[in-house]
Order: sequence, then C-alpha cells, then structure tokens
Amino acid sequence: MQNFSYEHLYRFTYDMLFQIGCPESDAKTATEVLLSADLRGVDSHGVARLSGYVRLWEKGRINAKPKVKVTYETPSTAVVDGDSGLGLVVAPFAMKVAMEKAKNVGTGWVSVKNSNHYGIAGYHAMMALEQDMIGISLTNASPLVAPTFSKERLLGTNPISVAIPAKEEPPFVADMATTTAANGKLEILQRKGLDTPTGWVQDKSGNPTTSANGVKDGGALLPLGGDREHGSHKGYALGAIVDIFSAVLSGANYGPWVPPFVAFLDPLPNLVGEGIGHFFGAMRVDAFRPADEFKSHMDNWIRRFRTAETTPGNEKVIIPGDPERELEYIRMKDGIPLLDPVVKDLTELGERFGVKF
Amino acid sequence: MQNFSYEHLYRFTYDMLFQIGCPESDAKTATEVLLSADLRGVDSHGVARLSGYVRLWEKGRINAKPKVKVTYETPSTAVVDGDSGLGLVVAPFAMKVAMEKAKNVGTGWVSVKNSNHYGIAGYHAMMALEQDMIGISLTNASPLVAPTFSKERLLGTNPISVAIPAKEEPPFVADMATTTAANGKLEILQRKGLDTPTGWVQDKSGNPTTSANGVKDGGALLPLGGDREHGSHKGYALGAIVDIFSAVLSGANYGPWVPPFVAFLDPLPNLVGEGIGHFFGAMRVDAFRPADEFKSHMDNWIRRFRTAETTPGNEKVIIPGDPERELEYIRMKDGIPLLDPVVKDLTELGERFGVKF
Repeated sequence: MQNFSYEHLYRFTYDMLFQIGCPESDAKTATEVLLSADLRGVDSHGVARLSGYVRLWEKGRINAKPKVKVTYETPSTAVVDGDSGLGLVVAPFAMKVAMEKAKNVGTGWVSVKNSNHYGIAGYHAMMALEQDMIGISLTNASPLVAPTFSKERLLGTNPISVAIPAKEEPPFVADMATTTAANGKLEILQRKGLDTPTGWVQDKSGNPTTSANGVKDGGALLPLGGDREHGSHKGYALGAIVDIFSAVLSGANYGPWVPPFVAFLDPLPNLVGEGIGHFFGAMRVDAFRPADEFKSHMDNWIRRFRTAETTPGNEKVIIPGDPERELEYIRMKDGIPLLDPVVKDLTELGERFGVKF
Repeated sequence: MQNFSYEHLYRFTYDMLFQIGCPESDAKTATEVLLSADLRGVDSHGVARLSGYVRLWEKGRINAKPKVKVTYETPSTAVVDGDSGLGLVVAPFAMKVAMEKAKNVGTGWVSVKNSNHYGIAGYHAMMALEQDMIGISLTNASPLVAPTFSKERLLGTNPISVAIPAKEEPPFVADMATTTAANGKLEILQRKGLDTPTGWVQDKSGNPTTSANGVKDGGALLPLGGDREHGSHKGYALGAIVDIFSAVLSGANYGPWVPPFVAFLDPLPNLVGEGIGHFFGAMRVDAFRPADEFKSHMDNWIRRFRTAETTPGNEKVIIPGDPERELEYIRMKDGIPLLDPVVKDLTELGERFGVKF
C-alpha cells in the first residue's frame, strides 16, 4: 500500500485519457468523476478501474470522442444517446440536461442509452446540490446479481444515489448498491482469506454460501435482504426498478443483456438495446416550498437523527454521506492509498502509452 | 376466520364512512382504496383498520369533509394540502394532479402535507398504469423503526411503490416497506407464539431480538438489511429518503414527529409540520420513447426474469406484483378472510353507528 496525492493521480489519469484521444474538457470531467470515488473511499470505482476503461477502448467498445446528444425530449424529460462514450463523460452531460429542465419546469428526468460505466453514482447526484436541487442518479451494470429464487445472474449491483441539500449541515447523500454488499467488499475478504457474512453470496448451484470466492466461482451476489425471509425480494425489486428506469425507458440493454465491464468478456449476441443505461433526476427544492425553509428543516432532520440515543457500543447515528465526506477531507490532505497490484497495473498502463506514473 | 364477499365489505365500509360524514364520492374512493389492500393480501392495511380511522375522526384528528387543494405548483410539481382528510381520499387526489402534470410536461411530482394514513402505497402508484404512465407512491408513517445504530424509533415503515406498465404481460408492481418485515408480519407470529427471524426487530435496549413482541415491548422494527453487516444502513437511507420527499418537501411532520396512527397516542408537542406526508410521481412512458416500444420491451424483461433457472426448491422467479394480483383474483371470487377479532371489532363498530355488519 502506498499513498499518492490527489494531484498526482489527477495528472496521470488526465494524461492517460488525453492519450487515448479524449478531448481536453472530457478528460478533465472524466478524471474528476473517477477520482471522486478514490477520495470518497469507493476504491473499487476509482483509478483502479482506469486500465479497465482503456482495455474497453482498445476493443472498440468505448468511443473516446463521442457526440453525446439529446435524441428525444419533453419539457421535463429527455433521452440522451451517449454514442458509446465513457459513462464518466456521458453522465455529467445528462445530469446537466436534467438540471436545465428543472430550472424551467421544476424537475428534470433523463434516461440514457449507449453509455458505459459511469463511476460512482453519488458524483452525479451531488451535482444538483449547488443549485438547491435534489439530485438522483441510477445506473444498471453488468449482471452479477441473482434475483430472489433465481440461479442466474440477471441484474447488476444497480446503485441508487439521492443527494439532498441542507443549510448549515452538510448535505444528505445516499449512494448504495441495491445488493447486500458490493463486489469490492468481496475482493477485500478474498485478499484476507476470510469468509463473508450470510446473505451476501450464493454459489453456482444457487445455494447460500459464505465463500468470498462465490461470485468468481460462478455464483452470484444477492439483493439487499439476502434471502426471502430477510426481504431479498425488496432488494431485487429495487434493482429491477433501477434497471427499467435506466434501460427500458432509454433503449439501452437491460437485465442479463447489459454488456460486461471487463474487456475479456464479450457482450451477448442479439442485444436488446444500445450500451448500458443510466437515469438521472433533478428536483428544484423551491418547486415545492421556499428553499431556505426546506433547508432549515433538513438541518433539523439531520440534527435530530445524528443526536439520537444509540444502541450499545455505537457512538452515533450516521447521516448518509457523513463517512464519505470525512474520508474525502482526510484523503485530500494525506493522499489516496493504492494497493500494490493497482500501482503495478497503473505503472504498466502508463508505460504502454508513454505516460509516467 | 370467516370469508366475506367484496360486495359485503364494500357496502359496510362505504356506509360507515358515509355515517361519519364523508361525502358520497369520497366515501366511494376511500372504500375502494381500503379494500384493495384486503384483495391484494395486505390484510393489515385493509378493512381491519377501519375502526382505527373512525377513532381518529372521533378524536378530531381526521376531517371527514376536507377541502383538499393544491397550495403551490410549477409545471411539473405541486404541493397538496390534505386539510386533515383521510389519506385514502387525499392520496388519489394528489396522484391525479401528478398525472395531469405528466400529461402536460412529461412528468408530475406531488408532495402532500396535512394528510393521514393512505392505505396501501400500491393502489395510488397503479392509478398511473391505465394511462401508460409509470406511477410512484411514497408515504411516511408513525415512528416504529430504528435507524442503524439508533435505539430510538425515528422512522415509519415508509413504503415505496413503483408501478410500470407492460403490453401483454401484467404490469410490474413493487410495493414494499423499507423495513425487513412489516408490522403485520410480527402480529401473525405473535398470534402463533413464534419467534421472528434475525434482523427484524431490536429490543428496548437496542439489542437484536427474535421476540415477536419486541416492538410492542418498546423495541423497534429494523430497516431492510437488519444490521450494518447485512446492509441496514441502506434500508435506513431508503426510509429517510421517503420521509424527506414526503414531508420535508411538503411541510408535513417528519421523523419522530409523525403523528401516531393509533388514537390512544397523542401527537408530540411542538410539531414540525402538518399531519403526515406523501409523495407521488407520474412519468408518461412516451415522454421517453414510443409507449408500444417500451411496453414490448417490458414484456421481454418480465418473460426473461420469470423463466430464469431457479435455485433449489423454488418453482419460478416472481415478478413484483404477481402474488398480489393472483390473490386479488382469488379473493374477488371466493371472498376475503377476516380474523375473528376483526369481525368482532367491525360488528361493534357498526353497532355504535347503526350500520349492520
């Protein structure tokens, strides 16, 4: 494990993206989105993924110079075609369209097709905050998750992010996979040789397992809830809603047809749509009540929850977004820790493209 | 346990609501909403609640003749003031406002204050289906749920319902509390003298328990996920989002201030808003792509999931809404089973108001 400054990783990521042909402003946007994951502690979605994006570009599955555009719209909705671009670029474009519509008619809702992995969901939702809007960001993803009673992987970890502004308190920012645990957590347990808790994974035959290798060995991640008795049909329904809003509304691929993120797996034949799909929402707070009034009540909400009496052994009730914001502060100051295999991967990637890591 | 025909229960409920002063059309709407819960198998939210509504009316906390109105709006949003009416009446009014806005600008979003318990979330979301819209319905509720690490009950079971139209297949209808299990399931276990699975309940001290009396004895329901290791922070975040959309946006009470449904518990002093809150959304499918195209892909989505290979011992993968729709068919034909204490309660209620059960 080594620490790298934000500036160092920013420079490298930007140079790499420029090197594969991204226009300057796209490279800048994509770098900022990607590194926000590292800052906020979602290490699986940050710079560690850079070589994966590059390999998809090498396979011709990512277009470094996309013409992202609105292909259909009404006053409060739009469909955006990402032209096979980096989701890291397509998503902020689409979120801006949603926010523009919210300015005009109160809310804006944008479904996106023909895109790729968009980094952390939270980045895009949080774009709404500075304009006193509530931001919503959903995406589908490569199928790794088995619905309740399914042996097959039919859904991605399909995250939901909702960002809500407050006044003196920091904003409320939920950003979560609709599974019990994200794949990144399995990888940590694999490295440590530890088992998972119950309810995270099923094996290849569809039986519950606590093996951290369960998914790698042909099993599946489980929807939030874990099993039927603990409400996994709810996690499954949430993942399904994310899939449908992101892809059936836009014309992207859905369910098991979502193209894999890894370049060594080919997309299925007979795709049902174009690329992967996202969904964004922006709601102007003052389309409901005066912004100042809303934000004061959010402060009150946050303070009441944060100061609630706790269960034995716990210090305080956490407001969604608190841990990520605290980590962002620390990592901006002290640097971002990267695992040795990631450092090696990035060094080799740089060497191939003449960019020094 | 006895079976009663839909028509029998409809007549009684309508007469009772008329008797307490509801105008004819309101009594009709409220009856239809309430009984849809019985038909769909959400017995805790149906006619068994009628005497609870009446007791709230007797306490002056429900207004039988509300002037429900839009108090603020933009082209795609509105705030509705329920004037302390039955949520069973206020909610369909607000959902119609959302659908009207969707007709005009693609989507409509309505936050509601000053309302009461609105029956099952799914009824209102499903109103959108016949107009080829996606319907969304959220509500906050009396505090019975402890956020992750909280000993205190700060949230309701705050359900989420999303209804999505298909073409030849029946619609996708998710309708779920954001807790591991709803309170109604605890009551069933209490009657049978059985324990709950893990992850449903914590006791008065904030420790996990499997006692079905845990909530009654001062404990709390747990958010979907059950504990931190199984993702309860996600269920907590979902319940929080429902609370904020329903009440902080509209000016209703939120969190621990939501007035209790039971008439024998008074609302807290120094309320932060008016009544309880709901949130509704309607999205015209053809505000994104041609409705027929969307609905054909929904058929494809539904068929792929329903015919997926299953885990050992399970017959098929269930599409959200399937079990409720099947039960509705059966109960419309064979009648609605009511437990003896419910029959006794309704009989006594009728006697007090000169309405024969």
